[in-house]
Amino acid sequence: MDQFMNEAIAEAKKGQAHGGIPIGSVLVREGVVIGRGHNKRVQKNDPILHAEIDCLRNAGRIGSYKNTVLYSTLMPCYLCAGAVVQFGIKKVIAAESSNFAGASEFMTAHGVEVVDLDLDSCKQMMSKFIHDQQHLWLEDIGQ
Amino acid sequence: MDQFMNEAIAEAKKGQAHGGIPIGSVLVREGVVIGRGHNKRVQKNDPILHAEIDCLRNAGRIGSYKNTVLYSTLMPCYLCAGAVVQFGIKKVIAAESSNFAGASEFMTAHGVEVVDLDLDSCKQMMSKFIHDQQHLWLEDIGQ
Repeated sequence: MDQFMNEAIAEAKKGQAHGGIPIGSVLVREGVVIGRGHNKRVQKNDPILHAEIDCLRNAGRIGSYKNTVLYSTLMPCYLCAGAVVQFGIKKVIAAESSNFAGASEFMTAHGVEVVDLDLDSCKQMMSKFIHDQQHLWLEDIGQ
Repeated sequence: MDQFMNEAIAEAKKGQAHGGIPIGSVLVREGVVIGRGHNKRVQKNDPILHAEIDCLRNAGRIGSYKNTVLYSTLMPCYLCAGAVVQFGIKKVIAAESSNFAGASEFMTAHGVEVVDLDLDSCKQMMSKFIHDQQHLWLEDIGQ
């Protein structure tokens, strides 16, 4: 599997181990991870800290997002896809979108290349979480 | 003028006084301000802390965004508009959109009522900032 997706999965599992929502993300530029993060809604009591937002935040003020690729264990929602479009990230690789369709079409319509790896391991991790803690999942996506 | 926009403007000025980007925001539910914030890219060295994001963050985990209205001194960009759409905020009031068109059409297409107050004072505040610190402004919107 893509080594960078493995790092995003490691982030998701770190979050899960701390009682959080198991979604992880890394930002890669020219083969180097320049940011990583995971959903911290529960841990930081913060509605904005989706995995991708935490990752972009941790990458810091990099100035230009040219040549960056954003990895996520789940297809980004509109909040995170909005960041992708606004900051000009041109490629997003998601581990799966079967548990959540996210804003894939919105990104594509704005010229972002969106790849869905359709990974069974991530589909299982997320579906188990949604089954076990549905209230938390619905809160996370604003429903 | 709308008292809530006045509070958003006060946030923008607070940010400006601290050397930040002068954009402020408040979240209102049933006539009560439940969150407020301003752009803190400079102050916190954080690329994600747009005014609206800071505001939503400070509002905390409110669960449902039903009956909330988001005020901003500038038309929200895709990042902030993505949060509006994802969290189900149904009304956005912006002080102006002449310095930045933002993601108004995107929000409208997702059923958000978008109001543009077209306030001269806010247009002047923002245009002066963009003129004086263009590099910072372009960084903020990912350009």
